[in-house]
Amino acid sequence: MSSGIDDFFAVIPAGGVGSRLWPLSRADAPKFLHDLTGSGVSLLRSTWDRLLPLTGEDRIAVITGASHGDAVAKNLPDIRCENVFHEQDPRESAVAICLVAAVLMRRNPDVVIGSFAADHVITRQRAFEFAVRQAVAVAREGYICTIGIQPTEPSVGFGYIRTGAELVIDDAPTAAVVERFVEKPDLETARRYFADRSFLWNAGMFISRADVLLDELARHEPELHAQIDEIAAAWDGPERDAVVDRVWPHLKKIAIDYAVAEPAAENGRLAVVPGQFDWDDVGDFASLWNLVSNGRRQEMTILAEEDHVLDADSNGFVVSQTDRVIAVVGLDDVIVVDTDDALLVTNSEHAQLVKNVVSSLHQQGRDGVL
Amino acid sequence: MSSGIDDFFAVIPAGGVGSRLWPLSRADAPKFLHDLTGSGVSLLRSTWDRLLPLTGEDRIAVITGASHGDAVAKNLPDIRCENVFHEQDPRESAVAICLVAAVLMRRNPDVVIGSFAADHVITRQRAFEFAVRQAVAVAREGYICTIGIQPTEPSVGFGYIRTGAELVIDDAPTAAVVERFVEKPDLETARRYFADRSFLWNAGMFISRADVLLDELARHEPELHAQIDEIAAAWDGPERDAVVDRVWPHLKKIAIDYAVAEPAAENGRLAVVPGQFDWDDVGDFASLWNLVSNGRRQEMTILAEEDHVLDADSNGFVVSQTDRVIAVVGLDDVIVVDTDDALLVTNSEHAQLVKNVVSSLHQQGRDGVL
Repeated sequence: MSSGIDDFFAVIPAGGVGSRLWPLSRADAPKFLHDLTGSGVSLLRSTWDRLLPLTGEDRIAVITGASHGDAVAKNLPDIRCENVFHEQDPRESAVAICLVAAVLMRRNPDVVIGSFAADHVITRQRAFEFAVRQAVAVAREGYICTIGIQPTEPSVGFGYIRTGAELVIDDAPTAAVVERFVEKPDLETARRYFADRSFLWNAGMFISRADVLLDELARHEPELHAQIDEIAAAWDGPERDAVVDRVWPHLKKIAIDYAVAEPAAENGRLAVVPGQFDWDDVGDFASLWNLVSNGRRQEMTILAEEDHVLDADSNGFVVSQTDRVIAVVGLDDVIVVDTDDALLVTNSEHAQLVKNVVSSLHQQGRDGVL
Repeated sequence: MSSGIDDFFAVIPAGGVGSRLWPLSRADAPKFLHDLTGSGVSLLRSTWDRLLPLTGEDRIAVITGASHGDAVAKNLPDIRCENVFHEQDPRESAVAICLVAAVLMRRNPDVVIGSFAADHVITRQRAFEFAVRQAVAVAREGYICTIGIQPTEPSVGFGYIRTGAELVIDDAPTAAVVERFVEKPDLETARRYFADRSFLWNAGMFISRADVLLDELARHEPELHAQIDEIAAAWDGPERDAVVDRVWPHLKKIAIDYAVAEPAAENGRLAVVPGQFDWDDVGDFASLWNLVSNGRRQEMTILAEEDHVLDADSNGFVVSQTDRVIAVVGLDDVIVVDTDDALLVTNSEHAQLVKNVVSSLHQQGRDGVL
């Protein structure tokens, strides 16, 4: 039943809890397992469905925490057993992506991998596929290729990619070299970037040959590369658990952006294809509100199974997982998230601070609601 | 076990649901049955306790809806059976107070009655008792005497009483005749009244001889007086139910303020004693917040059994009857009321509008949560 691009393998890191979406997201029910947009399926499943035409069902890997193994299998019944990778404990994206790349390269030395977060929302499927196909063509030429998103606001929540000179690569008409890779800017800088159409958002999608990715890692993080290589060598054999137990605790926690992409950009090895699709990382409830309401924040947006929300002279966003009556009276821009054992009330300006609540609850030992 | 002022009988109308305090107040758990202030007892019980030194336990009557009879008995185990009056259905304060007055007058023609709402909060007991004792002395002289409250803000939520000439009555050193009795004013007028120390709030406390009260009612609402007199004549006999069934449905719904107090003021028969105590009608959640926080609204005020409320950069008022974790993030002046089957989110400016929610829910047929 295999189809798609022959040498292409998608990797879905399904790691983060999404603590800014607490109390919807929980340690045992992280963001990627939720149907945040009312689509009927989880974000993880949407990600799988989106990649399927590009890979076929045999060439999508998921790397996730061991405790989420069952949920992943339930969400993705067609995933092959050897394509589910369990992290012993979370080590950020460089380990997750490079470990899968290293294992897949041992299975197929010419593989091109692409990493796609499990918990983002993308619409316009054809444009997405077109961007990935271009990125694969660019990757085959030895670049690490990212897909950049045209900013829709001067966000300080994302990193930016500055598009440089055009690349002349068959089947990749809009590809360019990345001139600069920049971390989340301050607001003034973000406004400057937003006004300059050459800056795109970094959406964390990286497409490259596995060997190219690992060579870049070896150049900039040689110790981490050696450790990952050691685990990968043992992964498909009888020594996996022993090697993982021995090496994993020493793995550096670093994002792939810093371990690979940023230095690759400095060396002219990072390319970009602009994505002509709508993308949202659904980072917090303000972002989710915007997404669910199609940007119509003047109204009251309700994400609930039943129509049991009453608003009087209010606008905002109400998410309910209970059957309680919720009345919102005379409030502007209020966000209410109602679950069986926890309630959040905030507004869009402060939605980012929800992660601090999660930290506080953890410090108070209230992990039962996290 | 009788004590207090020999000829004085207190009447507690325990009628209103307090719909601006939904979802705390419910049809089957009205405001007066709640311990809103965290005192450990219901507002009704606090009212009883406050009156006891003035009357003794044999001379306090409660008039309430038939469905609240059991709850009243549970709250006030010492009340005498014949002092609990059941309304067939609610008919506002003129009927409630005048009916009890008429029945009590038939039991004791010289009785002085005082009416005190079941759901107000009063602090400074000695000052309260001093005011009532003065009012009783004034009432014995044939006046209807109210206790006026010194305004603490230019409220548009209360009626006002304009103090006129001093009365010269033994044991009532601060009594005066009421020059004018005015309904809830607009804000501009309220500000003018607030600046003028002769205006006091009408707190709905009326003290008078039962015969004087009923004579005033007869003068201004003769039909209602005749109907009440007919019911009162049958009340302590075997015909009570038959007469109530026949007459009650035709009783006019009118507040005692309009049926008696306002016309009495016009005729110079209304007196006032200023109350030197703190009084609050706890009309809505803004009022309750103010009361519970002692006016310190800059902070987060929490009325909950357990400490399960987390606030980050917020101020407001959280009332919880559940054991859910509640996080309030980055909000100013927010009011959250969390119960098992209903949640309210509002602010102090709009707290008055909560009654509209109750109306809407009723129209939607959701009386289960009302």
